[in-house]
Amino acid sequence: MATTETAARSDHGAAGKILRIGIIGLGQASGLVLNWERQDIRTLPIRFTAAADLRREALDQFAKEYDAEVYTDVEEMCRSPNVDAVYIASPHELHMEHTIIAARNGKHVLCEKPLSLSAGEVDAMIKACDDNGVSLIAAHSHAMDAPIRAMREVIASGRLGPLRHINALNYNFFNAQPWPSRELQMWHGDLYNQGPHQMDIIRYLGGGMVKSVRAHMWWDHLRDVEGGYSAYIEFENGAAANALFDWRGYFDSTCYTFGASEGGWAQDPGSCGFVRNNMTKLLAEKSPDEAEAELWKLKNDLRYGGVSDLNAFQHWGYAPVSEGFEPFPEPVQPFFGLIIAACDRGIIRQSVKGLYVHGDDGVEEIEVTGHSGRAAEFMQVYDAVFNDTPSFHDGRWGKGTVELCQAIEQSAKEGRAVDLKYQVPVGDEPA
Amino acid sequence: MATTETAARSDHGAAGKILRIGIIGLGQASGLVLNWERQDIRTLPIRFTAAADLRREALDQFAKEYDAEVYTDVEEMCRSPNVDAVYIASPHELHMEHTIIAARNGKHVLCEKPLSLSAGEVDAMIKACDDNGVSLIAAHSHAMDAPIRAMREVIASGRLGPLRHINALNYNFFNAQPWPSRELQMWHGDLYNQGPHQMDIIRYLGGGMVKSVRAHMWWDHLRDVEGGYSAYIEFENGAAANALFDWRGYFDSTCYTFGASEGGWAQDPGSCGFVRNNMTKLLAEKSPDEAEAELWKLKNDLRYGGVSDLNAFQHWGYAPVSEGFEPFPEPVQPFFGLIIAACDRGIIRQSVKGLYVHGDDGVEEIEVTGHSGRAAEFMQVYDAVFNDTPSFHDGRWGKGTVELCQAIEQSAKEGRAVDLKYQVPVGDEPA
Repeated sequence: MATTETAARSDHGAAGKILRIGIIGLGQASGLVLNWERQDIRTLPIRFTAAADLRREALDQFAKEYDAEVYTDVEEMCRSPNVDAVYIASPHELHMEHTIIAARNGKHVLCEKPLSLSAGEVDAMIKACDDNGVSLIAAHSHAMDAPIRAMREVIASGRLGPLRHINALNYNFFNAQPWPSRELQMWHGDLYNQGPHQMDIIRYLGGGMVKSVRAHMWWDHLRDVEGGYSAYIEFENGAAANALFDWRGYFDSTCYTFGASEGGWAQDPGSCGFVRNNMTKLLAEKSPDEAEAELWKLKNDLRYGGVSDLNAFQHWGYAPVSEGFEPFPEPVQPFFGLIIAACDRGIIRQSVKGLYVHGDDGVEEIEVTGHSGRAAEFMQVYDAVFNDTPSFHDGRWGKGTVELCQAIEQSAKEGRAVDLKYQVPVGDEPA
Repeated sequence: MATTETAARSDHGAAGKILRIGIIGLGQASGLVLNWERQDIRTLPIRFTAAADLRREALDQFAKEYDAEVYTDVEEMCRSPNVDAVYIASPHELHMEHTIIAARNGKHVLCEKPLSLSAGEVDAMIKACDDNGVSLIAAHSHAMDAPIRAMREVIASGRLGPLRHINALNYNFFNAQPWPSRELQMWHGDLYNQGPHQMDIIRYLGGGMVKSVRAHMWWDHLRDVEGGYSAYIEFENGAAANALFDWRGYFDSTCYTFGASEGGWAQDPGSCGFVRNNMTKLLAEKSPDEAEAELWKLKNDLRYGGVSDLNAFQHWGYAPVSEGFEPFPEPVQPFFGLIIAACDRGIIRQSVKGLYVHGDDGVEEIEVTGHSGRAAEFMQVYDAVFNDTPSFHDGRWGKGTVELCQAIEQSAKEGRAVDLKYQVPVGDEPA
């Protein structure tokens, strides 16, 4: 089995340098980073040196746990000389404001998805970072996962000839997780929350330059918001992609990904039904206001400084519920649904350890190393700051992905293909 | 587990009546029917009472095995009073001529796929059958498989609300099987041979009325013909379908269908590479003429009266090659790749025994009974002749499927969506 060197460089600090990160918003994403993904992130040459939030108990816990500065004011934190870059994990509607504050104070920015729900706001964020000479990197994206980077490397290398087609499908239970209705409505179901993962992966594998998209969407009657989309995506280079994403919780497609979740954990097949059943009961038994309050409570459980116990994780489908379910001894590579890329001379798909490359000489499994998830993203900031290696996944890229999600919605609404105009290339192909 | 009554009626002859079938062409399809699928077909209230072919040894074997009439002239066989219907399995270019001969002699027609590669020829076939008051049924179609019929029943019943999306994917090794190049070129790879299976399934599940299709195709450099397509199909009822079919033999998607093949047999995962490797060697070691002769020889092995031994089946990927491979104790339900249908209130997909229906109350497995494959198709003729139950899968339906395959090719060539005009409805929805 071959081993790819994907991002091996990122495993080592540049001459022992440490990137000092200030966190804006100790909410759910930060909870995942600081609790759930902690083991992987602790190995990186980064330190969390500051945090800003409004919740006193979260700040206290953070100060104690990380021996770090804490602030209730974002601007004040951004003036700290002990912060090189900020990780923006505040509510979506504040992403632009916080990015601009950070940029004006000379801090590099890693901003959680979506950068914004409006392409115009993204322009303002890009301009602020450009004007102040700092990096803007769009997080969180499974396109930066190690196996997807390795898949792109095989495609861009040209060893299998030109890419012809990408097949992407994902059936999960996002809408059935205890997201408050207000948030689901803002994200149009999962379109602007996890939709960017799938669109990022497709754009990245296809080289970035989407030409047009034709899409349909459907409704989730349980949450009374968007329930999924199908899309046919055409690239300027002649490749095409079939995309399907259904997040209503009827069915969990981890059965097609070796049982592995988007984090590389063993996904209990029972979680999907468990989570959806909980949501059905909750909405049936409570008034809309009571239900919404309960959902905020359940969401708070996952925030940094929240409950974070087994029961809370089960409610979100993050911890097994089935009797006798066997978790993996350790995480495998992450799978954001099924992704299969067809080139002129072969087909590439993910394996538990990395990739299967099916070519003219048979199948080769490539073991993939390097970080995935948010650990990979912190290292993209690191490389941008210390190794003079800008990430393809910058503000302009993020804008292109928001544009694609908007085009899916527009196409579904107007019943016609929609052309794109803000797409940017990955820029990794041999000249 | 519930059991659906799909086509249960077909399991019993109408008042003990027997349908007497004359076979036109004892070639590869007939070889499959008479050897491979024999066990299932022998249980049907049909008898093979005649056959016409040019190969004397095949006729002799058939006469002996079935105590039946044999002919070297199709017209002569069609005049036999001992034949109610003909099964046309002659070379594709003769389908129209043989259909017209049969119809003029008052015989019902079950015609192998493709009805024709030209919609105009199909019109002549429909007219001949209409004029003579006989049925024309388009075979061979996996849309008539028991689980697909059951899936359509769930959709048409409306219990899950309107259909929104169909996801269909299939990666197989058709082009690497020892088809003579002349045949592959005529079929444009697998587009007009097995493409109709996938398009039939999609049309059937979606109600039949396709509005438009946008598609891409790619090349198979090994066989120097078409290697696959992707398509985005829009229905007049607002549903859409993502379709992917790659038949180059790089990868076998039976890994996503419980290891089951299109016939419901256990598919050895080693067959795909074995078959493609054989083809690669054959084409590398022989001159084009020698290779073509060898391919005809290998094709003849599978004809009725041919070799039909383990080695021949292995060459076609029909028999296991991997040490220690465990076949199923008996066939399960057939899978023509992965098919997932999403409705307003649930998702339907195939299980080993039938269907999983994922709805608001959880998942229900429906065990499916009834015939699949060509056995189901012979029973469609039976029901049309004796039970006054015309098949939806008639000449007009077949024309609509040929039109859709042609539209895929046209869309790929012209780089735009193509509108359809010969589509017909399934006609099973409650008024």
